[in-house]
Amino acid sequence: MGAAKTVAGQSTEMPEIAEALGRMEALLRAVGTEPLALDEAVGRVCAGTLAARLDAPPFAVAAMDGYALRWADADGPLRCRGVARAGDPVGAPVLPGTCRRIFTGAPVPPGADTVVVQELAEVAGEQVRILAGAEARRHIRPAGSNLRAGDPVVQPGIRLTARHVGLIAAAGHGEVVVHRRPRVAILSTGNELSDRFAADRATQILDTNRPTLKALVRAWGGVPLDLGIVPDEPGALSATLARALGAGDVDLLVSSGGASVGEFDYVGPSLTALGFEPAFRKVRMRPGKATLFGRIDGLPVLGLPGNAVAALVSALIFLRPALSLLAGAGRAALPEEQAVLATPLPATGPRTTILRGHLGRGANGGPTFAALADQDNAMLSGLAAADALALRPADAPPARTGEPVAIVRFDRAPGF
Amino acid sequence: MGAAKTVAGQSTEMPEIAEALGRMEALLRAVGTEPLALDEAVGRVCAGTLAARLDAPPFAVAAMDGYALRWADADGPLRCRGVARAGDPVGAPVLPGTCRRIFTGAPVPPGADTVVVQELAEVAGEQVRILAGAEARRHIRPAGSNLRAGDPVVQPGIRLTARHVGLIAAAGHGEVVVHRRPRVAILSTGNELSDRFAADRATQILDTNRPTLKALVRAWGGVPLDLGIVPDEPGALSATLARALGAGDVDLLVSSGGASVGEFDYVGPSLTALGFEPAFRKVRMRPGKATLFGRIDGLPVLGLPGNAVAALVSALIFLRPALSLLAGAGRAALPEEQAVLATPLPATGPRTTILRGHLGRGANGGPTFAALADQDNAMLSGLAAADALALRPADAPPARTGEPVAIVRFDRAPGF
Repeated sequence: MGAAKTVAGQSTEMPEIAEALGRMEALLRAVGTEPLALDEAVGRVCAGTLAARLDAPPFAVAAMDGYALRWADADGPLRCRGVARAGDPVGAPVLPGTCRRIFTGAPVPPGADTVVVQELAEVAGEQVRILAGAEARRHIRPAGSNLRAGDPVVQPGIRLTARHVGLIAAAGHGEVVVHRRPRVAILSTGNELSDRFAADRATQILDTNRPTLKALVRAWGGVPLDLGIVPDEPGALSATLARALGAGDVDLLVSSGGASVGEFDYVGPSLTALGFEPAFRKVRMRPGKATLFGRIDGLPVLGLPGNAVAALVSALIFLRPALSLLAGAGRAALPEEQAVLATPLPATGPRTTILRGHLGRGANGGPTFAALADQDNAMLSGLAAADALALRPADAPPARTGEPVAIVRFDRAPGF
Repeated sequence: MGAAKTVAGQSTEMPEIAEALGRMEALLRAVGTEPLALDEAVGRVCAGTLAARLDAPPFAVAAMDGYALRWADADGPLRCRGVARAGDPVGAPVLPGTCRRIFTGAPVPPGADTVVVQELAEVAGEQVRILAGAEARRHIRPAGSNLRAGDPVVQPGIRLTARHVGLIAAAGHGEVVVHRRPRVAILSTGNELSDRFAADRATQILDTNRPTLKALVRAWGGVPLDLGIVPDEPGALSATLARALGAGDVDLLVSSGGASVGEFDYVGPSLTALGFEPAFRKVRMRPGKATLFGRIDGLPVLGLPGNAVAALVSALIFLRPALSLLAGAGRAALPEEQAVLATPLPATGPRTTILRGHLGRGANGGPTFAALADQDNAMLSGLAAADALALRPADAPPARTGEPVAIVRFDRAPGF
C-alpha cells in the first residue's frame, strides 16, 4: 500500500514503517537453542515439542468429598469400610455392598464406579444410604484427564510462562529446550561523546544511547555486548565492525549515530566498504527517519538515529520485533490500541508522526491521549515522564480534541 | 464491606480477598539496597533520589538546520562565516553583520541569539538575506533545557525502564541504587510427591508447584531458594522452617500443601510450634481458599494450596503483590479490567469465584470472556491454555451472555 500511494521510487528509498519492518523481518532468523531447567525458562521461547511422559492424574481420583461405591449397589444400604485421602496409594477394592469414605483428590478404589457427594448420603454409624438425586458415574476424574501420556504439552515458538512450566513438570520433564538469548553488539559513534561524567568538563556530551540500548536489549530478552564509542573516523568504525564480525558470536549489531545530521553520509561509506547490503537506509517516520537496516556478511545490522529520543522510538519500532524474531518468538506487532485525543494536534507533514504524551481516562472509561507541549526530540526528560506514543499518518490534517488516535502504551512493552 | 455483609466473625476467620491483601500488605517491608550499573537496573526499583550533575544540553544548541545570527542584524544582508555541526565544540563568536551556517544539535556560537530556518534564508554565494516570516530568538534550545544541574531525575519507588536509564545517564550517573531482588524460599509438602519422573513408577504424583512458584518468583523479580519437598511429618516441616529462618537471608517463605484436604490441619500445628502469628488462615475465594499468611519470628510466610491450579491463582493474587512490596515498588493492584461474557455462567455460591477462560473481541472492539467448559481445579492443562481469569462476587446469580464481568488478562501479569 505504501508503494502505491507514494511517488515511484520513494517507497524504495524511504519506506513506510510497515514496509521497512517487512524488509527487516525477512532477513532475521531464530538463533540456536540450549536446554534449561524449567524455572529458568520463563520468558524464553520453546524450541521443540514436549509430550507427556505419564498420565496425570496417574489413576482415577475423586473430584468431590463423599463416598465411593458400585452404582449397582446404590439402592440398598451400604457398609462404609475405610477412608481414602489425597496422597494415599490406590486402596483395596470396594467389595459388593460396601462403600468407602473418600476425599477430593484421593484415588478411587478398584470396583467403585461412582462418587456420591456427602450431601446426598445419609450416614448412621457404619451404614450409608444414598439419597435421591445421586447420579451414576459422577465425580470421578479418570486417569489421564489432565494429561495423557504422549499428549503434546508445548510447541515450538511459545514464549514460556509459569503456567507452561507447571504443565511441563506435570508431564514428567525437568528441563526444556529453548532458544538462547540473542547476543546484540552495541556501539555509538561520535567524537563529541564521552562515557563518564567529569566534573571539570562542564560541556561534555554524555552517551546516553549505549546504556539505554543495553537496557532495552536486556529487557527484551537479549544479551548486550558493548563495543563502546567509536570515533568519527571511517577506519575506526570499520575496525570495530570487523572485530564484531570476527568474533562470530554476535546475532545483531546495533549502532547509533553521534549526530542528527549527515549520519548516514558518515556511517554509509564504512558500511559499504564492509559489504553492507541495505534493506533500507531511512524510514518515513518522525522522529526516527535516520534508521537503517541490512546485513554485512550475513550479520544483521540495525542503525538507529543518534538523537536520544529518536533512538528510543526507533528501538521500540524496530529493535523489539528484531529481538522477538531472533529469539524464535516470531513477529512482535507494535501493541497499538485506540485512544481519544485530549488535546488538539497540528497537521503532520510528509512522514508518519510519532508524539509523546500522557494517558488519561475518558468519559466512557477508554484511554485519552494528551500530547506533551514540548515534542522536541532532545527532551529525554519528556519521554521519560510520558506514558505513551501516538502514531499519526503522514499528511494528516490537524486533529481536534475528541478525535480517535492510534497509541502505544509503554506498559505494553515492558522495559521501555 | 466484607465484614458488614458476612456473619460476624466470618470476616476475621475467612476474609474477603481485599481484606486478606490488606492484612498481608501491612506486614511487608521493602528489602535492602545495592548499587547497579545502569543497564542492569531495568525492572528494578529505585531506592534513592538522583539529581542531574550537569546541564543537558551543556550549551545552547540549534533546534533546526539554518543560520545563526544576531537578530538586530536580520534586516540587512549577512556574510556567512563558518559552519557549526552537531558534535563541534562551541565556536568563535558571530561578529556583527555575519551569520553562521548551523545544523540541528550544533552549539549556538556566542553572539548569536536566533536561528533562522534555511527555508527563510535566501543564499547567494557568501551572502545570506533573511526573508519575511523569520522570528527573533527562535530555534535555540537553551543550555539545561533537557536537564538542569541539580534537577531530580528519579525518585524512590520508581520501577526503572530504559527511558529512566537514558535520563540517568544524561544526568551524569553511571550507576543507580536499587532494592535488591527479594529472596523467596519455596517448599512443597506431601509424602506422595516426587521430584523426578521415573519410568517404572507409573502412579507417581509429580510436584509441579515448586517449579511453577520458582518460575513466578523469577518472573516477578525475586530470587527463588528451593527448600525441596518436605514429608508429611510435623518434625520435618519444623526442621526445614527452622533451617530457612536460621539462614537469615530469606525475605519470604512460600509453602504449598501436598493435599487439597486437611492442609491447614497439618501445616497449622507445625507453624504454631514455631510461633506463627497469622494474618489470615483462609480466604473467601474459590479456588484458593486454603491460602494463609503471617509471620514467624518476623519472617513473612505465605501458604498456598497444594492443588496446582489453586496455587497458581492464589500466587497471582497474593505472591505478585507481596513481591512488589518486598522489591520496594509499593502495592501492585490486580490488573482487573472489564469484559463481556461470551458464555453464560452459573450462580457463584458463598465465595468470590475465579474462572479460567478465553478472551475474544466483542462487536464494539472490547474484550469478551468465554469460560472453559471444564473448571476442574486439577486441570492445569486448561489453565495453561487459558488467556484470562474472571472474578465473580460471592452469592452472585447466574449471569447471561452479554453481561459485564471483571477479568484479569494473563498478559498483564507477564510471566504468569
